[in-house]
Amino acid sequence: MSGKIYVINPNSTESVTRSIEKAIESMRLVSGPEIECITLVGGPVTVQTQVDVDTLAYPLCNKVRELDKSAAAFVIACFSDPGMYSVREVTAKPVLGIAECGILTAMTFGHRIGVMSILSASIPRHLRYFGAMGLSARVVADRAIERGVLSLADAEATFQRMREVGLVLRDTDGANVIVMGCAGMASFRQRLEEALDVPVVDPTQAAVGMALGRVLRT
Amino acid sequence: MSGKIYVINPNSTESVTRSIEKAIESMRLVSGPEIECITLVGGPVTVQTQVDVDTLAYPLCNKVRELDKSAAAFVIACFSDPGMYSVREVTAKPVLGIAECGILTAMTFGHRIGVMSILSASIPRHLRYFGAMGLSARVVADRAIERGVLSLADAEATFQRMREVGLVLRDTDGANVIVMGCAGMASFRQRLEEALDVPVVDPTQAAVGMALGRVLRT
Amino acid sequence: MSGKIYVINPNSTESVTRSIEKAIESMRLVSGPEIECITLVGGPVTVQTQVDVDTLAYPLCNKVRELDKSAAAFVIACFSDPGMYSVREVTAKPVLGIAECGILTAMTFGHRIGVMSILSASIPRHLRYFGAMGLSARVVADRAIERGVLSLADAEATFQRMREVGLVLRDTDGANVIVMGCAGMASFRQRLEEALDVPVVDPTQAAVGMALGRVLRT
Amino acid sequence: MSGKIYVINPNSTESVTRSIEKAIESMRLVSGPEIECITLVGGPVTVQTQVDVDTLAYPLCNKVRELDKSAAAFVIACFSDPGMYSVREVTAKPVLGIAECGILTAMTFGHRIGVMSILSASIPRHLRYFGAMGLSARVVADRAIERGVLSLADAEATFQRMREVGLVLRDTDGANVIVMGCAGMASFRQRLEEALDVPVVDPTQAAVGMALGRVLRT
Amino acid sequence: MSGKIYVINPNSTESVTRSIEKAIESMRLVSGPEIECITLVGGPVTVQTQVDVDTLAYPLCNKVRELDKSAAAFVIACFSDPGMYSVREVTAKPVLGIAECGILTAMTFGHRIGVMSILSASIPRHLRYFGAMGLSARVVADRAIERGVLSLADAEATFQRMREVGLVLRDTDGANVIVMGCAGMASFRQRLEEALDVPVVDPTQAAVGMALGRVLRT
Amino acid sequence: MSGKIYVINPNSTESVTRSIEKAIESMRLVSGPEIECITLVGGPVTVQTQVDVDTLAYPLCNKVRELDKSAAAFVIACFSDPGMYSVREVTAKPVLGIAECGILTAMTFGHRIGVMSILSASIPRHLRYFGAMGLSARVVADRAIERGVLSLADAEATFQRMREVGLVLRDTDGANVIVMGCAGMASFRQRLEEALDVPVVDPTQAAVGMALGRVLRT
Repeated sequence: MSGKIYVINPNSTESVTRSIEKAIESMRLVSGPEIECITLVGGPVTVQTQVDVDTLAYPLCNKVRELDKSAAAFVIACFSDPGMYSVREVTAKPVLGIAECGILTAMTFGHRIGVMSILSASIPRHLRYFGAMGLSARVVADRAIERGVLSLADAEATFQRMREVGLVLRDTDGANVIVMGCAGMASFRQRLEEALDVPVVDPTQAAVGMALGRVLRT
Repeated sequence: MSGKIYVINPNSTESVTRSIEKAIESMRLVSGPEIECITLVGGPVTVQTQVDVDTLAYPLCNKVRELDKSAAAFVIACFSDPGMYSVREVTAKPVLGIAECGILTAMTFGHRIGVMSILSASIPRHLRYFGAMGLSARVVADRAIERGVLSLADAEATFQRMREVGLVLRDTDGANVIVMGCAGMASFRQRLEEALDVPVVDPTQAAVGMALGRVLRT
Repeated sequence: MSGKIYVINPNSTESVTRSIEKAIESMRLVSGPEIECITLVGGPVTVQTQVDVDTLAYPLCNKVRELDKSAAAFVIACFSDPGMYSVREVTAKPVLGIAECGILTAMTFGHRIGVMSILSASIPRHLRYFGAMGLSARVVADRAIERGVLSLADAEATFQRMREVGLVLRDTDGANVIVMGCAGMASFRQRLEEALDVPVVDPTQAAVGMALGRVLRT
Repeated sequence: MSGKIYVINPNSTESVTRSIEKAIESMRLVSGPEIECITLVGGPVTVQTQVDVDTLAYPLCNKVRELDKSAAAFVIACFSDPGMYSVREVTAKPVLGIAECGILTAMTFGHRIGVMSILSASIPRHLRYFGAMGLSARVVADRAIERGVLSLADAEATFQRMREVGLVLRDTDGANVIVMGCAGMASFRQRLEEALDVPVVDPTQAAVGMALGRVLRT
Repeated sequence: MSGKIYVINPNSTESVTRSIEKAIESMRLVSGPEIECITLVGGPVTVQTQVDVDTLAYPLCNKVRELDKSAAAFVIACFSDPGMYSVREVTAKPVLGIAECGILTAMTFGHRIGVMSILSASIPRHLRYFGAMGLSARVVADRAIERGVLSLADAEATFQRMREVGLVLRDTDGANVIVMGCAGMASFRQRLEEALDVPVVDPTQAAVGMALGRVLRT
Repeated sequence: MSGKIYVINPNSTESVTRSIEKAIESMRLVSGPEIECITLVGGPVTVQTQVDVDTLAYPLCNKVRELDKSAAAFVIACFSDPGMYSVREVTAKPVLGIAECGILTAMTFGHRIGVMSILSASIPRHLRYFGAMGLSARVVADRAIERGVLSLADAEATFQRMREVGLVLRDTDGANVIVMGCAGMASFRQRLEEALDVPVVDPTQAAVGMALGRVLRT
């Protein structure tokens, strides 16, 4: 249990990192592993395209190599899990992606998972990933709120849109658990859960939770 | 984060509970949730048949109702996840089964999961469960060591048998991660991992790890 | 062909047993196996929750042990197939569940199966079961009429609701065969089939039909 | 229940029809539907190729049209279910294929189905069919005895070969139920079941059993 | 590369063959394999039922035997791929079906495939076929325009209907590529693609394209 | 049909590019699209790790942007299809990967696909990709020859090893078509096909073949 859990926000938007900080605040334990949230300098402002995703692998590997000695585990805090399999090649420490952990954790909440994404252009990429993980049978729908990561700052409008999309996931698609498909949505989790009356999973919390388990086991 | 994580061993064999205690020892944090391992009085000596599994739902629900006020979460520490869906109906606290969490956690270690079970009679039950979870695509084989839970006490003979079966899972079935299909196998995890040179997941550690994440999030 | 086919209604509601009697009346042949419909004394009034389902395994096993000598086969007449795998362990006679047989029989009627359930709370349990059977690909939707088993007594209102849900299964979900997801719906089968113009399968008829085949073969 | 169940052997080999007669003998009930086994005049001596299968649709449809008035149901007694979907278009009576019913019935016996075929050239056709039915997840292997239908006449050699292949299905592939992939194997069912100690399903018995259920229901 | 690519329209409607001619016109290369489009004399006017499909295998095999010497490859230009597996038994030359190639080619355009069929009665047949090919996961919906092949002649009304159905496939079902489920729809491809703003695949072009690849490789 | 088909070998090993040249030689038609094979300067000597794959996306996108004006289509000639989805974002021209096209083309040759890879470390990556494409059901096994791309130069030893692995794919795994999982294996295709007596697909030929179809259609 020596070493920190590094939570790396691969986009360069500091406000997203701060929102991640808040989301995992309660997971910092006096006697537990230290958790440090980091913004990847030089990352794109937001991760939207496949190009964004693929080109993150290289700087993420570099960052992880740099932090490896002081690390207990790494969490890649972007819902496309950019570079995750590459990073697993450059470190022997646990490497967790928030999309993978978000879906896996949601499976313990409900049978039919709905994913709430930022932009619909990302959905085919998500679907390929769920297929790659062999989990497609559990994801009933992936719907986008169609607001960029940066416009999440307008909290009230964002929440109303999340609520609308959440109701469609729940009532039309039959989801009984919803995964937020972006690290930047964390601050809306509790309010959304109350509004929708189904569990809502913040994928970064899910990944940090699973990282804790990995780091603490003997 | 008030309340304990109760890890309930549904069979009445105290030695299994003690082995679970050891396995999760490192997950007890001074400032984290208390973890208490409990033997279900009146449970079967070992859980082998479907009758064993089905008849555990009722006493497990009773036990959970009794503990609910002081609980933060429950872990059902038997690889058939007996009564898990029932228990979820009688408490609002997180309820995690070690089979579910063992498989989900293994997915973050490797693509092709091998399961090492106690007795081959349990394998169709496991396969139905993997199918129910929609995860069959990731489990490449489930093979039994064909030694009862109680004979696990003969540690050396048991380990040799686990090693043999592990090599078949790895080399014939192509597994690149192995899940131990019994709460009572925990003490062999590290030694088996070294012998096989692939990650070996103790499902109880996996479940307690995921329970920590659930309890600590806000 | 010696011995009876016992059709066990695991809930304690006699009116459901009588409706089952009617549904399988035409399957009693002078020269064929005797069919006896039984109400499980002590069962819940209706089977709605997972707790209901799991706690039925024990009394069902006891009942089957008691009847075993005089039995040719057993049919468990509740759409959650409670205790089916347990019961198969305590008798060497064929044991058929109406959900399993209802879906399997529906596959010979049409490619896209719609399931009409009583309450939506049962649907995740059904979906897990279809997954366990490896049949999810054929079930296009499972929709609930949201009326308790007991309110089925109000026949006209129930039929209108079944018709509404059936039209959604047929026209929105594209089902070309519908399985009634409850033993107590049998009396509506023919009328519903006419109203919807797609085959409607009563799962108890399906199971008793398959039981006949099992009992009569050499 | 007026009308006969016609069991049509689509190959022109009378000995296969006679073996079918024997297999379903115990399913003829004094008070039940009459069952008549028919050889399709003009069919191929054995059905081996896809050409054999496809070219049977037309004469089968003609035969069914001719028998329709006196029919309660039709069973197509060849494991490729030749023409089954076509025949369903030319009659409103139930039409069952022995492959479909053999697999569906096997699902009620065990979780992992092994298929024992005549010739390996048929296996890709079988696999396509299992996929078309959405049932591939339950069929663990399809292995051929590599003896033509006609050489089944040499009973002892055939049985020894079936036993060998059955042991591979059971012990290597993990099948816990075996479906005989040919109408002409019926006479070996009981002996094979004893030799292998797993249930063995004769698909023609399975189909006639399901036909009885279809014909007798109201 | 000696020999022609024969594109066989298995229905006897010459106007469909001419529309195919136009669709593949640009694939005829001076130095490439000759492509000849043929109408199967004696085929049904349109291929709608399973009987139509099954009874085409025999004349198609005959035609292929007749043309085999001068052939480099065969394309069966009907979206049910009638007789394809049979034809593959009677010639050693490549045999491609337009449904198979249409779906495979669509996979290189988009993740979620929508199929636009002529009549809804064909849809269960298509779904069985997608299942047989193991490709069901990629086909999100198959919807019919409900206009017979012959009424395609009324181009404007047909196009409007195709546009309507295409919008449902795109916006309700989430398709991001559409496959036209009939050889006779070719002339609408470009216009439909523009109207829907998603790629539209003409399956005959797809199959002739793949045939070129097969014929030209060494 | 203006513009070239660019076949880009993303590793920097010229001998692989030359072997690709040979493999697609017969696909160059006087009147067809020009095909140009290119070595990506600065690519890794061989593509083995996920890091190799992920870091190729960026230079491949750059190369494609540079060539876009003169391009009719792009083929990425590495069996991990590095950067394929990224490249599709930076050009409107068809972009085909050899793994995708190799598997899709193999589906028209046989039902059970075996993949012959270079190194076993790549197999989990391949399996994730087959899952992402939704095609896992058709790939029965992926086995490595465990010789680096560069040692392919020792042709005789390489061929013997390919033959050995091919026999296991065919006889143990039941593959009836084999896809060579590397652009550098092309020169062995015909000899291997003869030795194994099942079709062997060179994925680069498959991709260039499909590219021809894409470029030639109107």
